[in-house]
Amino acid sequence: MAGRNHEWFPLATAGAMLAGGHPTTVWNRSPGKAGELTARGAVEAKDVVDAVAASPLVIVCVLDYDAVGESLAPATGALRGRALVNLTADTPARAREMAAWAAGHGIDYLDGSIMTPTVTIGTDQALVLYSGPEDVWAAHRAALASLGGTADHLGTDPGRAAAYDVALLDLFWTTVSGYVHALALARAENVSGKELVPYALGITGLMSRIIPRFAEAADEGRHPGDEAVLATAAAGMAHVVHAAEAHGLDTGVMAAAHAVARRAVEAGYGADSVSHLVEVLGRKGPTTPARR
Amino acid sequence: MAGRNHEWFPLATAGAMLAGGHPTTVWNRSPGKAGELTARGAVEAKDVVDAVAASPLVIVCVLDYDAVGESLAPATGALRGRALVNLTADTPARAREMAAWAAGHGIDYLDGSIMTPTVTIGTDQALVLYSGPEDVWAAHRAALASLGGTADHLGTDPGRAAAYDVALLDLFWTTVSGYVHALALARAENVSGKELVPYALGITGLMSRIIPRFAEAADEGRHPGDEAVLATAAAGMAHVVHAAEAHGLDTGVMAAAHAVARRAVEAGYGADSVSHLVEVLGRKGPTTPARR
Repeated sequence: MAGRNHEWFPLATAGAMLAGGHPTTVWNRSPGKAGELTARGAVEAKDVVDAVAASPLVIVCVLDYDAVGESLAPATGALRGRALVNLTADTPARAREMAAWAAGHGIDYLDGSIMTPTVTIGTDQALVLYSGPEDVWAAHRAALASLGGTADHLGTDPGRAAAYDVALLDLFWTTVSGYVHALALARAENVSGKELVPYALGITGLMSRIIPRFAEAADEGRHPGDEAVLATAAAGMAHVVHAAEAHGLDTGVMAAAHAVARRAVEAGYGADSVSHLVEVLGRKGPTTPARR
Repeated sequence: MAGRNHEWFPLATAGAMLAGGHPTTVWNRSPGKAGELTARGAVEAKDVVDAVAASPLVIVCVLDYDAVGESLAPATGALRGRALVNLTADTPARAREMAAWAAGHGIDYLDGSIMTPTVTIGTDQALVLYSGPEDVWAAHRAALASLGGTADHLGTDPGRAAAYDVALLDLFWTTVSGYVHALALARAENVSGKELVPYALGITGLMSRIIPRFAEAADEGRHPGDEAVLATAAAGMAHVVHAAEAHGLDTGVMAAAHAVARRAVEAGYGADSVSHLVEVLGRKGPTTPARR
């Protein structure tokens, strides 16, 4: 997921299948990218129908599901009776649509999400999540094990891998956005990245404690105030917005976070744990129009 | 910082000073909160002038600097010739204003930021950052060591502790906002917090790698594309926004993050590392009006 790059993942995936001893046929919409793979024994197909017809297991990994549809459309007939494993990232709803399309064409379908950077594919550091029918998973999990590391089957709902994926992308890209903003704010205050690093790493330590606690609070729907209450969070967020504004930095992310926290405080939850925000994010108030 | 609560920190701070063997006088704007502390030997002052006059070292920790000013105004004369250590959180600019006010009244001044939760105060887990004159730090660092753990003096600029603080609050509260949103999105997809936890903890592991790498890139002002490029980030962020919109969740935070990433991609940096965002956050484009 982190570091997922639609240009690189297919190469890493095909390379891992080759390394696992599987006869592998490759095809890319942009020709000429398979050189290293063919040198290692892969067959380069002349077109997508040719590629699909070569194997019982077809793995696709492109930019998004629009690209999946465009790439595979000519091969719909050739896919019948084969297994399609879609490692492309998109939303849970689109994963379910793709599964329905596959079912309608007699195609076995697993949806997958690669959760670790490209460089981990084929190593024991890889993490790939799958969802879809148990029998399809059972038939192909051994071959998919060549992608390395941990392969978790999350259930038969084909949208489930994508659901985990978007939730984790949500956490990851929000965190990264916060970190680059912190670096920009530190720089504006003449604090270097290097000076900030040891303390920033300490934040990841705090998150290791908070992640399981907030998950439990969310699952129980109970958010009693502990030492990190919403009123304190809202005050801290306001300090960040003011400090960033003073340097002319974009304040969009923290202003949006602050608007949500302030709405919860105004609704009377200021003495509750910050985990209470899980409950209010689905209730748009008049003071927080959804931003597009 | 995390878990900083203006109600609890003064109690923990005074308790730690008592535990360190220092004669301690306490005063709170809301009377009747000192019971536990007086039972342990603290003297409760009848008013703020009385409290200030009791000790050569005065520690203040309230909601924000407006509250500092209101609390200490009657004691300005009594503070002359004493040291004031302000552990209240606010912006670097306000820390520098407060230092100038103190200098104008003959008050020695250190600005401090408590970076760890209340429960850590007085234990070896505490982290408190200070900035201000070297001689004031040298005179009082031994007493301040009673607050526990690590006490770092960051330099003579009185705004420096607050600068680190707002940058780290920026990272912390953005991360927490992303996590509560991830829990809400997972819940909408029938994924429990407990199911998400092991994978969410994996994100903190990714951040441990990214934090030093992005800091180095920011310090060098060079952001060559590695496996986590801006175009991929923008695509992932869009998936999150779409998935959250499908469930009627507030999308403010991720939409704002996506707007920044998209602006960088549109400016031609799509193949650069995501760390390039450090450079564009200070340049507001017409497509990204600052949100308040």
